[in-house]
Amino acid sequence: MNKKPVNGMRDILPREMEIRDYVISVITKTYKAYGFRRMETPCVESVENLLGKNGGENEKLIFKILKRGEKLNLSEASKEDDLVDSGLRYDLTMPLSRYYSCHEAELTKPFKALQIGPVFRAERPQKGRYREFYQCDIDILGDPTNLCEIELILATSEALTRIGFRGFQIRINDRRLLKDIASLSGLPEEKNEELFIALDKLDKIGEAGVKEELLNMGISESMADSYMNFIMNLNEKNTEDAFLFLAEKLPDSRETIENLKTIFSTVNANKTPNYELVFDPTLVRGMGYYTGPIFEIRSPEFQSSIGGGGRYDEMIGKFAGTKTPACGFSIGFERIISILTDTGFTIPLKEEKIAFLLEKGLSETHVTEAIKEAERLREEGKIVRIDRMAKNKKFQKEQLEADGFTQIREFYENPIGEKKS
Amino acid sequence: MNKKPVNGMRDILPREMEIRDYVISVITKTYKAYGFRRMETPCVESVENLLGKNGGENEKLIFKILKRGEKLNLSEASKEDDLVDSGLRYDLTMPLSRYYSCHEAELTKPFKALQIGPVFRAERPQKGRYREFYQCDIDILGDPTNLCEIELILATSEALTRIGFRGFQIRINDRRLLKDIASLSGLPEEKNEELFIALDKLDKIGEAGVKEELLNMGISESMADSYMNFIMNLNEKNTEDAFLFLAEKLPDSRETIENLKTIFSTVNANKTPNYELVFDPTLVRGMGYYTGPIFEIRSPEFQSSIGGGGRYDEMIGKFAGTKTPACGFSIGFERIISILTDTGFTIPLKEEKIAFLLEKGLSETHVTEAIKEAERLREEGKIVRIDRMAKNKKFQKEQLEADGFTQIREFYENPIGEKKS
Repeated sequence: MNKKPVNGMRDILPREMEIRDYVISVITKTYKAYGFRRMETPCVESVENLLGKNGGENEKLIFKILKRGEKLNLSEASKEDDLVDSGLRYDLTMPLSRYYSCHEAELTKPFKALQIGPVFRAERPQKGRYREFYQCDIDILGDPTNLCEIELILATSEALTRIGFRGFQIRINDRRLLKDIASLSGLPEEKNEELFIALDKLDKIGEAGVKEELLNMGISESMADSYMNFIMNLNEKNTEDAFLFLAEKLPDSRETIENLKTIFSTVNANKTPNYELVFDPTLVRGMGYYTGPIFEIRSPEFQSSIGGGGRYDEMIGKFAGTKTPACGFSIGFERIISILTDTGFTIPLKEEKIAFLLEKGLSETHVTEAIKEAERLREEGKIVRIDRMAKNKKFQKEQLEADGFTQIREFYENPIGEKKS
Repeated sequence: MNKKPVNGMRDILPREMEIRDYVISVITKTYKAYGFRRMETPCVESVENLLGKNGGENEKLIFKILKRGEKLNLSEASKEDDLVDSGLRYDLTMPLSRYYSCHEAELTKPFKALQIGPVFRAERPQKGRYREFYQCDIDILGDPTNLCEIELILATSEALTRIGFRGFQIRINDRRLLKDIASLSGLPEEKNEELFIALDKLDKIGEAGVKEELLNMGISESMADSYMNFIMNLNEKNTEDAFLFLAEKLPDSRETIENLKTIFSTVNANKTPNYELVFDPTLVRGMGYYTGPIFEIRSPEFQSSIGGGGRYDEMIGKFAGTKTPACGFSIGFERIISILTDTGFTIPLKEEKIAFLLEKGLSETHVTEAIKEAERLREEGKIVRIDRMAKNKKFQKEQLEADGFTQIREFYENPIGEKKS
């Protein structure tokens, strides 16, 4: 028997679980107030759906599930796919697309969805990255207007603020601008995906590093210079100047720029001072399916991103048949939990916790009295735990105190009554 | 692409999801008040653990996960087990045993655990039974006394009462009594498991049916008669008379009977009138791992059981090495949800829901005004959903009304202001 969880996965201890439940409750309550509704799909999806268009990259990460019964023919199986019929979901977006295409007629449009649940990726285990982890996604399906982006940003920053985050940035860009800028510098469209992967590393490898990657891609020195100059020049400007500059240099991108400006001004008019919006022309976001505005949340305090998303108007249509505009935001749930646990976060306004320790031979009458008293306290909103008194009472009380029990009452048979510790 | 969920699994629509979330919140809140703490294990466990001692019966039900990378050697694999290294958990009890044995030193004793999460069984799909479904288990590990049974019964019935159930029965028996009665009638101990399987069908096949199964097992007519007479005679008595009868007939079972009597009298002294405790000498409970008191919740209104559990003092030790007494109660979560949805359950005290419909061309200024008004209402605790006005506004409003939006406000550019519908 293996006592440990399977390789790369982990158990959640009660103390972390309390924080997870608290964060989930704050997120759910916030999004619910904006009209988002919780939904759930199975953890298992058909192998065809999982391999779908993203194939290659994800294929190795999928936990595949063996066929069962007659369908499993081991002697005739020549390749992996003969053996499997399904696998564990690796994100919540593919299942959402399938869900929407299956249940479209039953869903109020636009469909405002909140999903919180485990996803599975067979990545090499490393510190802080697990093979089963929670994702927390909100999506609006069926509305092509920037009302989605505005609401997603306002709701998500409200959720993060209620959890306790301050001073974070929501960085915004648009996939179309990335393309238009590449095209302006004369870069061939078929190099775009490669180009964006290089640009995405700007923080890590710097301007010279990105330029080198461009040259390695076979882009000419002059084109690479022109592109890098444009991007770096734009990157230095504040948001207002950047939009003016873009409007001048990219007259054909007017609609994209106007759309971004509206998102900025409307969010800015409604947001709290707890965070700021920043235009970031170097923001790429990994997923190839984005088609419009993209966003990412960064906190100067905590280096990595704590959330991100964007518009993906093409993906749902691949399942649903009919084109369905979509925009989503994903909170980096596990990242947030690890920040909170690392910084000693405590849940605000917790219930008072009281422990009753019952002497081993306590008579039925006195046990009943203790239970009645516990019930009375629970009705007042307190947490009351009734335990048998352990042989090592000192250690028992230390454990309870460490768990936040502020009152420990001992119940003895003789003399009748109780002692307060 | 498959639009439907994989065979035997299902998507949860928002309306059902709301009920599920509500039930989970009531259950969690109730158990928390009794000092239970939430915990979680991965959905995936090693194949060795899953096949463990229960083997045979469960083996066919396990979704097994294919090995990956170098570990998968298709050409040399001669049997299923060469291909897999893990699988999806089929219950929450096996993972709990592993968890406790792994983390015992970090857990406050006795460990009072609450688990709510999905489990997976590759059963033949049928109406109302799915291959992924939620279980909801509470367990107390490390306390050998009947304080566990008493608290589990009180807490579980409190949770069911808060959800809205009334008039249910908690039926109680003890595995040791089942054995002692069989032994009294002279039945050989090695037939016990078979005997209990037959007795478990009493409701369905009646006294004559059970007796026939006993005869088919090779038990003599006279022994079968003696056994059936004893059980049926006992079964007719009220709880008090039954205990008197047992004390007289089974003097060696005195401790077992006294223990049950204490559970009955202590729970009865503390319970609400919403449910009753019933001694049921024919109650078996399927799981072979039970070692003491067993319980099952039945509601005359809804035929099937809505929960059950019992003491299983041997199981944890198989993982942990050291013997660890354990007692658990499992709420039939999916059964409860299906009863609630079938009976048109509505969540009490829901927030007021208001929808804003924004005319397509609404200017930024007016969008901002609408958002500010929405924020104000959300701060008052209301749910406010902001949508673009659809072309088919009538249908849009009908959908929103069906979703419980009691106020729908329309925002137009000209004349400035809003109309209330």
